[in-house]
Amino acid sequence: MSRHGALEDILGYRFTDAQLLERALTHRSHGADHNERLEFLGDGVLGCAIADELYARYPDLAEGKLTRLRASVVREEALAEVGNLLGIAGHLRFDARQTLTPSVVADAVEALFGALLLDGGYPAARAAAVRAFGPLLERIDPEEVAKDAKSQLQEIMNERRKKLPEYRTVATHGEPHRRSFEVECVLVDLGLSTTGSGTSLQRAQQQAAKKMLERLGR
Amino acid sequence: MSRHGALEDILGYRFTDAQLLERALTHRSHGADHNERLEFLGDGVLGCAIADELYARYPDLAEGKLTRLRASVVREEALAEVGNLLGIAGHLRFDARQTLTPSVVADAVEALFGALLLDGGYPAARAAAVRAFGPLLERIDPEEVAKDAKSQLQEIMNERRKKLPEYRTVATHGEPHRRSFEVECVLVDLGLSTTGSGTSLQRAQQQAAKKMLERLGR
Repeated sequence: MSRHGALEDILGYRFTDAQLLERALTHRSHGADHNERLEFLGDGVLGCAIADELYARYPDLAEGKLTRLRASVVREEALAEVGNLLGIAGHLRFDARQTLTPSVVADAVEALFGALLLDGGYPAARAAAVRAFGPLLERIDPEEVAKDAKSQLQEIMNERRKKLPEYRTVATHGEPHRRSFEVECVLVDLGLSTTGSGTSLQRAQQQAAKKMLERLGR
Repeated sequence: MSRHGALEDILGYRFTDAQLLERALTHRSHGADHNERLEFLGDGVLGCAIADELYARYPDLAEGKLTRLRASVVREEALAEVGNLLGIAGHLRFDARQTLTPSVVADAVEALFGALLLDGGYPAARAAAVRAFGPLLERIDPEEVAKDAKSQLQEIMNERRKKLPEYRTVATHGEPHRRSFEVECVLVDLGLSTTGSGTSLQRAQQQAAKKMLERLGR
């Protein structure tokens, strides 16, 4: 059994090609034979496998809700959670100076499923995904998938026939590779504004939108 | 042979479940048994099949370029083009008052591949995708995939160590279901601003970014 036996046990799958599995578990900080291309492939594999599973699991659910469900299952935080369930940190090869961020863990999870597609084909990848994402899939409530704050806010304004929220970038801090953003969310018709910050414009906007929802009592 | 024989010929695949194929080719304007759930599934199938094919076709291409290549192949305009190659308009059932927009055609293409996954499994869906997207896949140049204007602009500002572009929504017109947006793109450090408009914020921002690129001589 390879040093990844415990991981394979949780996935319910044994790799034929040990080198492929090793590559999936190698961060680019460790060397040239790293997992980034497999991560690209795995993103596609998981998108398909999770869609496939949700389609079967919720035969009456409309497209919009399925789309939102899938997004909630394959978002970075969820992937990182699956990575933690898999104990991936103990298997990953990376440079000591590299921080094991949720993003690094999430990428390795994707890479793992890219490797699985190549090693065992789609049915094996799908079965392992259902297994690894099982706890997450059990937890989601199709009727209560929280829309992201920006979507919620937009919908509310739409319903009220008000102007849609505007997002203005107020400030950008830090070096290009390590930016942080300050964003203002403005509801012109209501004369309201909130601010948010984050390491991407998207995150900063979401935070500003969340605060606006609270302001509106949502 | 079903009335969809010609379509099946181009795909290189014969459906076992005729009802499934019919559903994939039914727009929601036609009736309750429409293709929207299959479209959700097909989005996942195509994302995976195209990633799978690009991964194999370009063994030396880095993740970032693969991601951009895939996005260029599965974007709405490209899907609509594939739909036209398949002659999907002649097979689609839809209400006479429904306009056959590129978006409707693109959705039907996705639905078709969702149905294909269910009917024939992943290898059949992948093979049909490679066939249907063949002309597109032949045409793309991995070194010359145009980045979208916003990404290009952001990269340029990053390289120049300038503040990133800001996008401000200047105006929103029309009814909620038929909005159009006016957006301003601002380069604070350079004191430049351009405007763009479109039926979504994203489109309006892209147009503003494109004009800014032209302003910068790109």
